[in-house]
Formats: sequence, structure tokens, C-alpha cells
Amino acid sequence: MAPPYKVCLIGSGGVGTIASLVLTKSGRAEVTAVLRSKYQHVAQHGWDIESVDHGTLTNWKPHRVVGSVADAAVDKDGSTVQYDFVVVCTKQLPDRNPVVPMIEAVVAPGHTAIVLIQNGIGIDEPLTQKWPRNTVLSSVSHIGSGVSGANKVNQIGRDVSKIGVHAGSADVAADYIAMYKAGGAAEVEFAEDIKAARWEKLLWNGTFNTVCALTRTDVGEIQRSKGRETLLVPMMHEIWNIAAADGHKLGDDIVQWMAYRLPDDCPYRASMLVDVENGRPMELEVILGNPIKEARRLGVATPVMDTVYRLLQVEAWKIDEAAKKQ
Amino acid sequence: MAPPYKVCLIGSGGVGTIASLVLTKSGRAEVTAVLRSKYQHVAQHGWDIESVDHGTLTNWKPHRVVGSVADAAVDKDGSTVQYDFVVVCTKQLPDRNPVVPMIEAVVAPGHTAIVLIQNGIGIDEPLTQKWPRNTVLSSVSHIGSGVSGANKVNQIGRDVSKIGVHAGSADVAADYIAMYKAGGAAEVEFAEDIKAARWEKLLWNGTFNTVCALTRTDVGEIQRSKGRETLLVPMMHEIWNIAAADGHKLGDDIVQWMAYRLPDDCPYRASMLVDVENGRPMELEVILGNPIKEARRLGVATPVMDTVYRLLQVEAWKIDEAAKKQ
Repeated sequence: MAPPYKVCLIGSGGVGTIASLVLTKSGRAEVTAVLRSKYQHVAQHGWDIESVDHGTLTNWKPHRVVGSVADAAVDKDGSTVQYDFVVVCTKQLPDRNPVVPMIEAVVAPGHTAIVLIQNGIGIDEPLTQKWPRNTVLSSVSHIGSGVSGANKVNQIGRDVSKIGVHAGSADVAADYIAMYKAGGAAEVEFAEDIKAARWEKLLWNGTFNTVCALTRTDVGEIQRSKGRETLLVPMMHEIWNIAAADGHKLGDDIVQWMAYRLPDDCPYRASMLVDVENGRPMELEVILGNPIKEARRLGVATPVMDTVYRLLQVEAWKIDEAAKKQ
Repeated sequence: MAPPYKVCLIGSGGVGTIASLVLTKSGRAEVTAVLRSKYQHVAQHGWDIESVDHGTLTNWKPHRVVGSVADAAVDKDGSTVQYDFVVVCTKQLPDRNPVVPMIEAVVAPGHTAIVLIQNGIGIDEPLTQKWPRNTVLSSVSHIGSGVSGANKVNQIGRDVSKIGVHAGSADVAADYIAMYKAGGAAEVEFAEDIKAARWEKLLWNGTFNTVCALTRTDVGEIQRSKGRETLLVPMMHEIWNIAAADGHKLGDDIVQWMAYRLPDDCPYRASMLVDVENGRPMELEVILGNPIKEARRLGVATPVMDTVYRLLQVEAWKIDEAAKKQ
């Protein structure tokens, strides 16, 4: 395949909209964005974007905006679209919205490369099993970007990501990375060991994200309360140990760096905390459930993670119960 | 000493007021009740009590109601009162309101027997150290009783307790038990092993009380969410193991009984949950902190308790911070 690539980007929230902007700006992609809840408004007005990387844009749209994957699968004239890349930016909820059936209509077996810009561990496995001849990449993103209102995107943290190959072609990965760089992303790095990059990100997602959600604290609060020392750092060591047992030795100083990089008055509210506060489903299974399964498989003890996971399962139950009553 | 005994009862809330009623009704005690926040109203109007054991009483008062321990220590004519029993029914907050200095003015060394109707483990030690020649008893209560408004007491669970000796005289314990029975308590039993009775009560207090507080669930909710199986029962086994290592083997079926005795729609809100909801200090140190210290001393693993304790320390920090801002 040669540029311009046909790209289908699924889940255009805070992270996905910036990705679709970068891919569009590269000049090497024709981007179709799939939205669910905000489709009507965005199809009409586009997005209003404030971005540390791309400045201010109003009424911005990629090539095409559609309301479902089924709509993305066919062109305006009714013919099937063969996508070169499917970029998945949805929340990772394997029990409610598993990725394989979600993207099936836009994946051409043996052709379409799949790029996961999502949280968690073990999320590539269902895809490499389903499409053994396709390239599956992860783009582990450290961006800070959110949506407010019907179509406002506010990107406050730069678009830094590590991209690497779970299965398939390194050339396809190189093409995607070149395209993403050309679109003006802040920093894109090829990750030789993409699983290590996922474990590295989990040092934050499995700890700050989960404990702040459980204790209803922002980053500064959990740090000032000493919960960083009593809970987060021990959990980070557990994650580090699972990764090492899985053959991915992370840096020796990375726990210290992850735990102490943000200031003690940082008011950031982690995404899982925002989910709990709004009664929305959490990415609990891919962030703690799967890593704990790996730990059991590898014989690694994870006492703090185990208990935090079980406590968050109670929170998940409460969210489900409240949703049933609505 | 011979009856009528002079009794000073400190902390007349839901539990303490029923105890002062029982002691007064026995005809063997002259009860002085010490109240803090509700003193003015109760001194004037007494209590309005609805009780499963004692029926309806209005404007009820013991012999004397005072607003401080210092006031209890002296009679109306200014002479020092020598109390035979000091019954402590306050919340157990060793860091904020330790019992020794609180009761010092009403304890005659070598004479006054101290009775603890309080939660937790290790709460007798500061007393037996301070007054090595006094009798120290625990009355481990399973009553269900609460206060509402300025002076309403509602006792919905019967006054069942196990009473035993930490230090001192078995005869004094027998006198106290006889007096408490004579006052119409539902069930009073002498506990040969009073520490075992404390560990037994901790099976509930250290588990339902703490996890429900952390997850903001009532008893029915934590049971329906399966948190009973994933969290409470494992914690109960940890407590059982500490007690056994401490030389107090609890019954083999007691974990099962404690975990499954309440129905799945039980709306009971544990006291620590009510504390968290109202931003009041929790009895965390005596309910989890001390048992965990015992576990470390005895070499017993308590992974679930450790993490729940650390998470509740974050909640305690939040409660303190909110109180500072008021």
C-alpha cells in the first residue's frame, strides 16, 4: 500500500480527535472518523480545538465524519471501503464493547493494519488471534487531552507516544510512524519492545488512576496524604515485577520517576476517578484484571493490586446498579 | 466495696445511655453520666428512649448528669467523689482523645474498676499500665443503638454482651455482671477469655465496618456486590489467624456465621461509614491499626487488611483536611 492511506479512526474523544487531526495534517491520510454520542453535532459543526501542539482551530473536520462503523465501511456510492489503517481510540471495555466485533466491518483480513491507542495490558491478543495475517500496532500515548460540551477538545499535555509492533510488519509500523510525525505530533518514538511500553504506562494507570478513583482524590491529594508511599509505590513495584517476569525489564529508576514527577498541588483528576464520579463504566479489567491474571500465570505476588482490584469491583457493581435504576 | 456503687459513665451516646439506664435500673448503682456535646439539652430535658429491651421512656435521667469529667470528679458540696466503677463508652480515638488522661480525675488508684464498652484491640493496655492495681474489665457489646436529634435514643438491637477481666479481680467482675443483669440487660455472659471476645467482635468491626466505609456501601450492598466473598471473608480469616497466633483460638464456624448472618437486603450502615459520610474521625487505629501491629509482632500475614488500612488512612487524611478548612 502507498499513501494517501485510507484511515478509519474509531472513537473520537479527547485522544482520538487529536490523532485524527495529526493524521489529516500529515497529508498522507484520508481520515474517516467514527463517533457515537456526539455524531450529530460534530457532523454539522466540526470540532473546536485548543491544542498545545496545534493551536486554535474552529469547526475542524477530517475528510469524513460518520455515526457508526457500519457507515464507515461503505463509501457514499455504496461500495465497500478497504482501509489501510484502523485506529482504535475507544475506551477498553472488553465485557461491554469488545474491539473485535466493533471493528470487524472495517478490517480487511491480511490487509488492514490495526493501531491501538488505548489503555491496558493484553488488549492486542484478541486482535492478533482474530487476524493472524494483519499488522497490529500499539501507540502508547502520554497525551493530556479531554472533551467538554458537544464539540470542544482541549489538549493540555503534549502528544508524546511510543509506537511499536505486536504482530506483523515493521515496515507498516515505520510508515504509520512517519505519517504521524509528519502531522506535527510532539514526540513519536519507535518502541522496539512495545509490551514494555504498555507496562511502563501501566505504572501510572494501574496506580494513580485506580487508587485516586477508589479514594476520590486528585493527584495532589493522594500525594499529600502519603498514599503515594503507602499504596502507589508498592503497587508500582508489583507492576514492575510482573513486567520483569513477563520478560520486559523496565528501567531501574522508573518507579521513582513515575511516582514523583508531578507536583504535590497537582489538581489532575484521573480518568477512572472521573468515570466513578459520573457513574460511567471503568477500564478496570484491562488496567488491573489482566495484569493480575498475568501475575498469577507468572507466579508474581500482587497483594496491593489484588485488594484495590476487588474494591474497585464493588465500585463497578455500584455503577452498574445505579445505571439499571435510571 | 458494697452496693450501691458509685458509677461514672463517660460518653452517653447510643450505647452509653442504655448502659446508664441498665445500671440505674439495677438499683445497685448511683450513676453520674458525663456528656459533652449534648449536655445542655439533656441536663434540662433528659433522654427520650425507645428500646427493644426497656420500652418507651421520656425525659429519663440517671442520678446526675454533668458536662465534663472534672465536674464528675467533685460532688455538689465540693468534696472529691470516689467512684467504684468508671464505665467508658466514648469513641476509641487514641491519637485525639486517649482514655487515660480523659478518665484520670475519676479513677482512684487501687480502687476504681474501669469498664470499657468500646471497640478495638489493645485498648486495655494503656489502662493496665497506668493503674496496675485497679481492675480493668471489657464489656464487649453487640447492642444496636443510636442517637438522633438532641436527646433521642433508639435501641433496635438487644443489649447482648460478654464481660470479662483484663486485669484485677474476678469478684469485681462478678459484681458488675450481677448489677448489669439486675438492670434488665438482654443477655450478659461472663467471658473467661475476654481477649477472644474482642477478637470475635473484630471479625465484624474490622471487615464490614471498614470495607463498607471505604466503598460507601451498606451491609446489603457489600453482600450483593460479592465483596463479602472477595474482601470480607478473606479479612475475617486474617483476623482469625492473628487471634489464634495471639493464643485465642476462635470457633471454627465463626467466620461463616459472621459473614452470612445478615440478609442480603440489610440496609444497615456501619458506624465507620456514617463517620466518613459526616466527616467525623474514624476508630481506625484500634480497629485495624492495632490488630495489624499485633499481626506483625506475631508474624501473621494480613495483605487485605494492610491495603484496606492504608486506603482508610487516605480517607482519614481527607476528613482531617476538610475539618481544617471549616
